[in-house]
Amino acid sequence: MDKEKRDKLFDQAKDWVLEAGKNIREKINDPLQIDTKSNPNDLVTAMDKETEEFFANHIKQKYPGHSILSEEGFGDELDSLGGIVWIIDPIDGTMNFVHQKRNFAISVAIYEEGVGEIGLIYDVMADNMYQAKRGEGAYKNDVLLSQMDRNKQFEEAVFGLNHFWLCENRLVEEKRMQQFVKDIRGTRTYGSAALEFAFVAEGVMDGYLSMNLAPWDVAAGIVLVNETGGVTTNIDGTELNMLDKDSVLTCNPAIQDRLLNSYIKHGRK
Amino acid sequence: MDKEKRDKLFDQAKDWVLEAGKNIREKINDPLQIDTKSNPNDLVTAMDKETEEFFANHIKQKYPGHSILSEEGFGDELDSLGGIVWIIDPIDGTMNFVHQKRNFAISVAIYEEGVGEIGLIYDVMADNMYQAKRGEGAYKNDVLLSQMDRNKQFEEAVFGLNHFWLCENRLVEEKRMQQFVKDIRGTRTYGSAALEFAFVAEGVMDGYLSMNLAPWDVAAGIVLVNETGGVTTNIDGTELNMLDKDSVLTCNPAIQDRLLNSYIKHGRK
Repeated sequence: MDKEKRDKLFDQAKDWVLEAGKNIREKINDPLQIDTKSNPNDLVTAMDKETEEFFANHIKQKYPGHSILSEEGFGDELDSLGGIVWIIDPIDGTMNFVHQKRNFAISVAIYEEGVGEIGLIYDVMADNMYQAKRGEGAYKNDVLLSQMDRNKQFEEAVFGLNHFWLCENRLVEEKRMQQFVKDIRGTRTYGSAALEFAFVAEGVMDGYLSMNLAPWDVAAGIVLVNETGGVTTNIDGTELNMLDKDSVLTCNPAIQDRLLNSYIKHGRK
Repeated sequence: MDKEKRDKLFDQAKDWVLEAGKNIREKINDPLQIDTKSNPNDLVTAMDKETEEFFANHIKQKYPGHSILSEEGFGDELDSLGGIVWIIDPIDGTMNFVHQKRNFAISVAIYEEGVGEIGLIYDVMADNMYQAKRGEGAYKNDVLLSQMDRNKQFEEAVFGLNHFWLCENRLVEEKRMQQFVKDIRGTRTYGSAALEFAFVAEGVMDGYLSMNLAPWDVAAGIVLVNETGGVTTNIDGTELNMLDKDSVLTCNPAIQDRLLNSYIKHGRK
């Protein structure tokens, strides 16, 4: 994709993300909205669908040749990432939406022929936009994010992962993962894959592991992490399948090998 | 403590917390400050000491009869909580300070004869003040926090705990804690005990467990959680020792019994 085209698409995508975010902020604390939904789970379901439909309608009208890969049914049935594809998670972190009314994100990526060109992760309630264009660096709002420290020490890493990695699970021997947690500096669990990707790009965490994510959970995050020098694979260390769910490891490359080889592959089921 | 005295102390304590927070915000991104410290760990150590000394100097000058219980050496050697005691953690969440430059807090409590009268937890970078006076409710900035839902279902609880609870540990059988994590709705790990207490008071988490906290980590949080109907004990379900380190469980009372009896006591070493 040439720069002019990417810039124009980026500006349009960002405008729509900001508009969708504003709509969610207006409705999340509106008693009328909450009263008409029987419980907070209904509210998030309604906002999820409404937000995805907003993107789908705008994209189909303005870019009829583009495809959409998304969660809630307004996208296309795709068997390849050919052409230009918008990959959209209207609300990533639904449990946070329901329980916290914050710490959730809109995640929008634009890929061309399978290559991530644009990544936008919008922390709706904090009004923070994590944004990247391929080859032009990643930004948090207007601040360029630093490149990852290629000499990061494994023992000083702070890592995002949920607690199920330390329980009996289908992917990896939990004892190895318990040892991993003891060998690094610290762990965090934030409950939104998109925001955890953004935090890795920002350098406030050095990596993030998840057992099972869909393409719309990771597509924008991959572009952001790429732009700050990070790497993203599944837990076998191979390229993610962007048309299906997969395990995910995104991290500073300085810690990737040891994590994959000494902990995950060693304990892989 | 009578209301007039509590109100005056509260206003003074809050002013000092805001001033200390402003000072930290000014220095955390100041290249001069960072350059003169050899690494971020030195910066947090310096800010920790400077902030505690700020409180100690002001308190000793204005309230010479009050005692101070704190971490960095500017407080008093106490063998009881008699009289009026300020319990201060100048920077709670030092790993977040170093790695994230956010998600840390100033925690200040005022106790009289062992009773928590005032609790202030200030999320410095987000500029959010969690504040409570005994008997008058808890607030996030100017918003009164809701009372906890006494009918909260155990299976719908979101709980804060670090990953070490699921590894072999000296307190409790890790398999029981792994089952706990599977039986509730979700888990979070934020890396600041003070903020995790504040989030429990706010209702964005239903409880928080920690293996080993000092009085200054919990004193303000206990006042906040009390004011929204929560309970705080050690993991044996008995009153915290406020002069020494202890394990901590703070939560919605609707889930306390089952957590203590079915998981923790069942697996207690």
